[in-house]
Amino acid sequence: MPSPEETNGEHPSAAIEADATGGADEATRQPISTVVIIIAMQTEALPLVSKFQLSEDTDGILFPKGVPWVRYHGKYKDLNINLVWPGKDLLLGVDSVGTVSASLVTYASIQALKPDLVINAGTAGGFKLGRLSTGDSLDMSPYDEGAILANDAVIKDMEGAAVAYVADLLSVPAIFIKAVTDIIDGEKPTAEEFLQNLVAVTANLDQAVTQAIYFINGRCLSDL
Amino acid sequence: MPSPEETNGEHPSAAIEADATGGADEATRQPISTVVIIIAMQTEALPLVSKFQLSEDTDGILFPKGVPWVRYHGKYKDLNINLVWPGKDLLLGVDSVGTVSASLVTYASIQALKPDLVINAGTAGGFKLGRLSTGDSLDMSPYDEGAILANDAVIKDMEGAAVAYVADLLSVPAIFIKAVTDIIDGEKPTAEEFLQNLVAVTANLDQAVTQAIYFINGRCLSDL
Repeated sequence: MPSPEETNGEHPSAAIEADATGGADEATRQPISTVVIIIAMQTEALPLVSKFQLSEDTDGILFPKGVPWVRYHGKYKDLNINLVWPGKDLLLGVDSVGTVSASLVTYASIQALKPDLVINAGTAGGFKLGRLSTGDSLDMSPYDEGAILANDAVIKDMEGAAVAYVADLLSVPAIFIKAVTDIIDGEKPTAEEFLQNLVAVTANLDQAVTQAIYFINGRCLSDL
Repeated sequence: MPSPEETNGEHPSAAIEADATGGADEATRQPISTVVIIIAMQTEALPLVSKFQLSEDTDGILFPKGVPWVRYHGKYKDLNINLVWPGKDLLLGVDSVGTVSASLVTYASIQALKPDLVINAGTAGGFKLGRLSTGDSLDMSPYDEGAILANDAVIKDMEGAAVAYVADLLSVPAIFIKAVTDIIDGEKPTAEEFLQNLVAVTANLDQAVTQAIYFINGRCLSDL
């Protein structure tokens, strides 16, 4: 398991968490061959597409006709990298964030690509390094906050639990890399703070994902 | 489109809503051949399984290994009926309610069964007959209530929007049949009222679904 990855103690920071609940035992001693990286926002995804020189699928055979989901793929040394972004909502024209899209692309990607490992990377809101929670609202309602605190969680994203649920259902191990965009207990509105920090945080996120890819290459699941 | 279906004005009541946004035009003038009915709770599903003498799939080839999803199938006259229930959560042992499971089984069922029509049937909380909203919480938080009222919705379920989203994504028309279990603005706790009313409401729900099946048989999408 990689040690927690963070910047120099200042937020924005990025955290790597591993969930070893899934995973076929026989596969854990083979080097990891194929990873699927699920990223909800185009802004978060494109720097990694560029960094690893990934190509966008244009043949449209991986996913059903009509869905906006986009797969980029390429290799880093021995590792087959697939980056899947749920795309822009066809009606609203914004990134398809949230648990429903995340669960669907995770499911469809695992079915189509049979990865050894799923990585869900993205920005998140939070107080400090710690346990991750997931909800479909960008803003924090008092009711949600109570549920989050009752579960000792201090970071909130909009996809992680859905990806974890589907990966576990299909017995694929998953890692979560989240960079904190906004401090929920601060005084600024969440959306404003989120957008202000997004550029800096995305750089941190992509750096953390890149380091994770470097780390994973050549290693087995049992090394994580 | 079927006229709204309700009981004699007393709650619990059942409502049928049609969403004609999906649908391949060329198919709308053929009689409907195959329907997929998505039902989140076993209690809601079993009376219909019995009513239409549906058989449970036991070969395990329709859905991926490891998922708890259950498909029942059979015929009513010329209509192929598939009833899909997301099953019991493998960890928690309770019905897999909510948007993530609903979106996944809707997606997988459409991919595997290519239905002409999806029907999402289930119990819901609400004030009176009207527009449906969806959320992953059984209880109503003040924040959720604000969002629901701002959208002129007066019924809240936990799956409908996810089923609608996936059906629309894959261009399959969908109908929603919801029976109201609890009056959210009443004084009793939601869970208590939900359980007290569940038996009576389920009977109404199953009656409404049965009438919908009778209505659909032999008709085209353009007749709905």
